[in-house]
Amino acid sequence: ARPRVGYFYTGKTGSQLLTEKIKKIKVAEFTSMPVVVQDSATVYEAICTMFLEDVGTLFIINKNGHLAGVASRKDLLRASMGKQEINSIPINIIMTRMPNITYCFKEDFLLDIAHILIRKQIDCLPVVKRSEDESGFDVVGRITKTNITKAFVELAHDELL
Amino acid sequence: ARPRVGYFYTGKTGSQLLTEKIKKIKVAEFTSMPVVVQDSATVYEAICTMFLEDVGTLFIINKNGHLAGVASRKDLLRASMGKQEINSIPINIIMTRMPNITYCFKEDFLLDIAHILIRKQIDCLPVVKRSEDESGFDVVGRITKTNITKAFVELAHDELL
Repeated sequence: ARPRVGYFYTGKTGSQLLTEKIKKIKVAEFTSMPVVVQDSATVYEAICTMFLEDVGTLFIINKNGHLAGVASRKDLLRASMGKQEINSIPINIIMTRMPNITYCFKEDFLLDIAHILIRKQIDCLPVVKRSEDESGFDVVGRITKTNITKAFVELAHDELL
Repeated sequence: ARPRVGYFYTGKTGSQLLTEKIKKIKVAEFTSMPVVVQDSATVYEAICTMFLEDVGTLFIINKNGHLAGVASRKDLLRASMGKQEINSIPINIIMTRMPNITYCFKEDFLLDIAHILIRKQIDCLPVVKRSEDESGFDVVGRITKTNITKAFVELAHDELL
């Protein structure tokens, strides 16, 4: 029998193939390392960590190491504008706390996360996994608009196809 | 003569078609409205504008209306942490100023801007056009990682293809 070589008609157009590729990208392929602080930290310590690690969003963990809150540059800027001394305010006063945190899992599709970032107007989601004792979530990564921008660039370079 | 209908072999694969589409997207298709403050504003006024307009980056214009500087949330957070009173510091002391500003034009390709945002680790570029008297740049838009994220989502929905 002759080997089957050459082009075969799949019934799909180029753009259908493209959208299928985009829809298959998982969070795990683009996640960054998370930056966390303890919920006992002060706002001042949180801001220092944010500058040292050069991130736009911090995740706050409780004494069990589980996700307790999220603080953005905007939250910290608002706090530092206030009347109170940032050395004396604990980060857990100003953070967004569970269960109001939007999070995602490594197995989620990047496209769904991109939708959430736009719809909820947030810059960053924690990537979590359920803790072994099932009492909370461990933070294992972060997904930002920078990660989505990287996916966009790689799509154009055919690296994901 | 028979009408030419059906599929034709173009010599291009689906992924080549995709990358060509991505490479053709222009800045103009995704630009947002810029938010500007006068260079005579104080840091405090700039922070208020940032919260009111809910943007991550402000553009600072001089008395001729030309682009003079850029200030990010990070710049304003650093300033508000300092010893000085933010009511008395002018924004033009802390802003990144010309000629150190990276800018782009409406006709630029979005993919090139995505590369610049990642390589230079910045969140936002002003979209400019040369002023009529050629003495500076007028700010006509802004491109952020949010805009790139929107392009990514629209690609998946076939809206750009």
